Amino acid sequence: MARGDEPADLVVRGGKVLSVFTREWLDADVAIVDGWIAGIGEYEGVEKLDATGRWVVPGFIDAHMHLESSKLLVDEFARLVLPFGTTAVVADPHEIANVLGTDGVHWLLDASAGLPLDVYFMASSCVPASQFESPRRALTPGDLDALLRRRRVIGLAEMMNFPGVISGAPSELAKLELARHVDGHAPGVLGRSLNAYAAAGIRSDHEAYSAEEGRERLRLGMWLLIREATAARNLQALLPLLAEHGPSRIAFCTDDREPEHIAEDGHINSMVRDAVAFGIPAEDALVCATLSPASWHGLQHLGAVAPGYQADLLLLPDLERFVPDVVLKSGKPVAEFPRAEVPDWVRHTVRIGAFGPEMFRIPWEGGDAHVIGVVPGQIVTDALVATPPTRAGEALPDAEQDLAKIAVVERHLGTGRVGLGFVRGFGLQRGAIASTVAHDAHNVVVVGMNDASMAAAVRRLANRGGGIVVVDGADVLAELPLPIAGLLSDEAHDTVVEQSHALAEAARQIGCTLEAPFQHLAFLALSVIPSLKITDQGLVDVDKFELVGLSA
Amino acid sequence: MARGDEPADLVVRGGKVLSVFTREWLDADVAIVDGWIAGIGEYEGVEKLDATGRWVVPGFIDAHMHLESSKLLVDEFARLVLPFGTTAVVADPHEIANVLGTDGVHWLLDASAGLPLDVYFMASSCVPASQFESPRRALTPGDLDALLRRRRVIGLAEMMNFPGVISGAPSELAKLELARHVDGHAPGVLGRSLNAYAAAGIRSDHEAYSAEEGRERLRLGMWLLIREATAARNLQALLPLLAEHGPSRIAFCTDDREPEHIAEDGHINSMVRDAVAFGIPAEDALVCATLSPASWHGLQHLGAVAPGYQADLLLLPDLERFVPDVVLKSGKPVAEFPRAEVPDWVRHTVRIGAFGPEMFRIPWEGGDAHVIGVVPGQIVTDALVATPPTRAGEALPDAEQDLAKIAVVERHLGTGRVGLGFVRGFGLQRGAIASTVAHDAHNVVVVGMNDASMAAAVRRLANRGGGIVVVDGADVLAELPLPIAGLLSDEAHDTVVEQSHALAEAARQIGCTLEAPFQHLAFLALSVIPSLKITDQGLVDVDKFELVGLSA
Repeated sequence: MARGDEPADLVVRGGKVLSVFTREWLDADVAIVDGWIAGIGEYEGVEKLDATGRWVVPGFIDAHMHLESSKLLVDEFARLVLPFGTTAVVADPHEIANVLGTDGVHWLLDASAGLPLDVYFMASSCVPASQFESPRRALTPGDLDALLRRRRVIGLAEMMNFPGVISGAPSELAKLELARHVDGHAPGVLGRSLNAYAAAGIRSDHEAYSAEEGRERLRLGMWLLIREATAARNLQALLPLLAEHGPSRIAFCTDDREPEHIAEDGHINSMVRDAVAFGIPAEDALVCATLSPASWHGLQHLGAVAPGYQADLLLLPDLERFVPDVVLKSGKPVAEFPRAEVPDWVRHTVRIGAFGPEMFRIPWEGGDAHVIGVVPGQIVTDALVATPPTRAGEALPDAEQDLAKIAVVERHLGTGRVGLGFVRGFGLQRGAIASTVAHDAHNVVVVGMNDASMAAAVRRLANRGGGIVVVDGADVLAELPLPIAGLLSDEAHDTVVEQSHALAEAARQIGCTLEAPFQHLAFLALSVIPSLKITDQGLVDVDKFELVGLSA
Repeated sequence: MARGDEPADLVVRGGKVLSVFTREWLDADVAIVDGWIAGIGEYEGVEKLDATGRWVVPGFIDAHMHLESSKLLVDEFARLVLPFGTTAVVADPHEIANVLGTDGVHWLLDASAGLPLDVYFMASSCVPASQFESPRRALTPGDLDALLRRRRVIGLAEMMNFPGVISGAPSELAKLELARHVDGHAPGVLGRSLNAYAAAGIRSDHEAYSAEEGRERLRLGMWLLIREATAARNLQALLPLLAEHGPSRIAFCTDDREPEHIAEDGHINSMVRDAVAFGIPAEDALVCATLSPASWHGLQHLGAVAPGYQADLLLLPDLERFVPDVVLKSGKPVAEFPRAEVPDWVRHTVRIGAFGPEMFRIPWEGGDAHVIGVVPGQIVTDALVATPPTRAGEALPDAEQDLAKIAVVERHLGTGRVGLGFVRGFGLQRGAIASTVAHDAHNVVVVGMNDASMAAAVRRLANRGGGIVVVDGADVLAELPLPIAGLLSDEAHDTVVEQSHALAEAARQIGCTLEAPFQHLAFLALSVIPSLKITDQGLVDVDKFELVGLSA
């Protein structure tokens, strides 16, 4: 059929076809056979799809993301992103791995097998993300070796323990021996430290926040995965590098995108749109969303409209909005998203020992305390110092200083371990918000203005098997149940989006001034993002990479 | 040492260091440890190399070549090209495979193992190049499978049987199943045929002769390997594509370069030089000689001056000549080129049955004959028609019409099989020239103005175990002995160059007007390059891909 001796199964005709290789628009037919592209040129087809006046581009590929951040089962995630043109993702399943070990990863691999979305995995390299976090169990090099043998597991996921890699820790170097293809994660690392990280064989990073950081990564041979996550938006800062150096070693990724973010703004297509609005040529922006992620990950059959490539095609009505009006997955319109079984063992994961308001009590003799400073729109935090009010030998939250209590409660094994501290930036006046989505160990994180509300919030999550909740005293104002691993809903995406909006509204009711409080909440326990974080083991000074006491 | 905690083994200081990723020159030290690059930045070293005023670039990589075309043993080849900055080559050993089967390839692999030149191999996909050629034995898919298991064999070499691939011949598709990484070879193929070829999974080509051919390959996702061989020079024609599309999917290769060509003009560095003289930015031309070939071939440790890469560095005094004044291979100046053993079985390969002048007789009743038309500077030929003079029922050469006899004599098994025809373009007045270098089967090819000279030339080669010879009647005017497989000399490169020059001079003596007669001679038996060729089986119409009779 490529020779034109017989008509193809389907011919897409009359459109402008992007060659991602030359970044040109070709006036050509696309001949599709058996789900693959047979030829670009003049072709006949049994079926014909008229693409007149439209732009034919490859399906979008997310170079690095965590499925769990969508809070959706993977089929529901596919149902949400396919209409935005995302036809493949490279996922790091480290959220579920923290909660359910490799068993959880194998389940997610199986659950994503039959979908009209290609879900590739990287083996989660850092479970826990650091020694300061408490997942249900740590993943060993043996676990990773076994994961890497599965067909859709294509490399080692983000090496978040950058201090370990840079210091040459044998445990981390042993992991790097397992795979040639390794994603990086090195926020703020520059100079000789970055050289040491790259010399270990890590050739990508999605944590660059500034053009300076991005430029240094590119110069040293690291692929720049530009991230536009819900709580970490780096696109605008890094687009100048795309303008300067072209798209050949730059790819787009979403990392962590909330369901309402996707539903309302789109997925990878939103990054293409924003890049073009910034002034990047559409062809270049499209390469960052197609060929570049495929090239970085060695997905040789994806990312191009060319012979021998999988027929994942989008028909775009314009080069401004980048919302396709036709999506072909393996040459066909997408009809069904089969749901895999959700077994009991992935549903019952929240286990908290006996507890009450007293567990949040902070004995205090007065003086300055280390305080986590939320940076709106970023997942990095500031390390602040403040003086909490004291009463009866106890440090208290203080609405006037915008000082809330924060706690992380271990929830996998019911050890009763709790880390306590203060956070500034939420603007809470009363009540509490809590979540079992708390990167990466996904213990329960709770921020509140009094111990009773905090205890009520945590109790509610324990009873529900996980989720996100806003309480005021004993009242639950809003909640988003996430019964699967405490991370995922089993509802449709519009329901989840509705519940998310209700949560945000409830948070505003108790005074919250942050635009996206739950996204920030979810990252306050992530001990590999600077500067000050908190886990069930206590406050973590990420810059020094050590635990610190509350007293400053 | 990358962290700077300890001094590196060697620091290269004061130079402008090329980042092949951003195509910028960085003012930075290069820290080298254990043969690898540890860091780019500010470093101390136990040893220091002053690069002030010089340009520090990665060693050059030849993306596709045949070692045998140098006529040198591989250590001698390394001795010749290293000073020109070539530190790695990707070789298709199909010349020796035609003569000595996989045994010969394994010998060449072993012989190149300990050299200060990285020699990677592609498993020769087409031995014979077509069914019209007669090697000692054909390579089977089983042979290729075994070759592909060796460590330095990284893929399947040029798929020269493009008609077979395009027509979907099961034998060729079976070979393509063996490897994900396959080099192409599709001279003149365009349109739907090219789509069919690419759809089979072949993603490079080094046979593009025109910008049009090159552009179509790039658009369809094939890497463009720009070739500047001795007898096939495509650089000037294809440089406009490099100017237009940049270097990210374009790499340089030499394919077949004669020893005197290398000695006098250089190797990959000459292509960089000529590209820059054409107007290509030096940074782009250098990428085609470094990162691009490494990327195409998945050689992740080569092609860049960056942490984690092998320390193959060149110090260039200028960006015009591109002749390095220092070459570091794995961090060290090159001191020794060890020679591997050359066993008897690779030395005794020319076997011709009983023969004499009568074997070159062409019975003829008069009329037009198909004539091979040599195209100076190209390995394609024209398919011409001429009327040879006749005497006593025999067709004769005719100096006036520039019509010489050409014969290919099977030389592996002594079958006595001879293909006969006429060729125009050599300008011979008398005598004969003959060679056991005759792509790809390397039977004896001989061009002459009388049967006695042709027989004398072939006899001489048979007695010498191979080589190239110019005779006039019974006199040997000049010769280049190639006792190893009839392809390689065991002399030093300057001796081989001297002998080559003597051959060319001798050819001029008998009237030859071609600048490089032996390079042309060597390709007249290659049945996969259009238009008209000749093998021991007879004349081959390459466009129709069939044998044709001599009578037109």
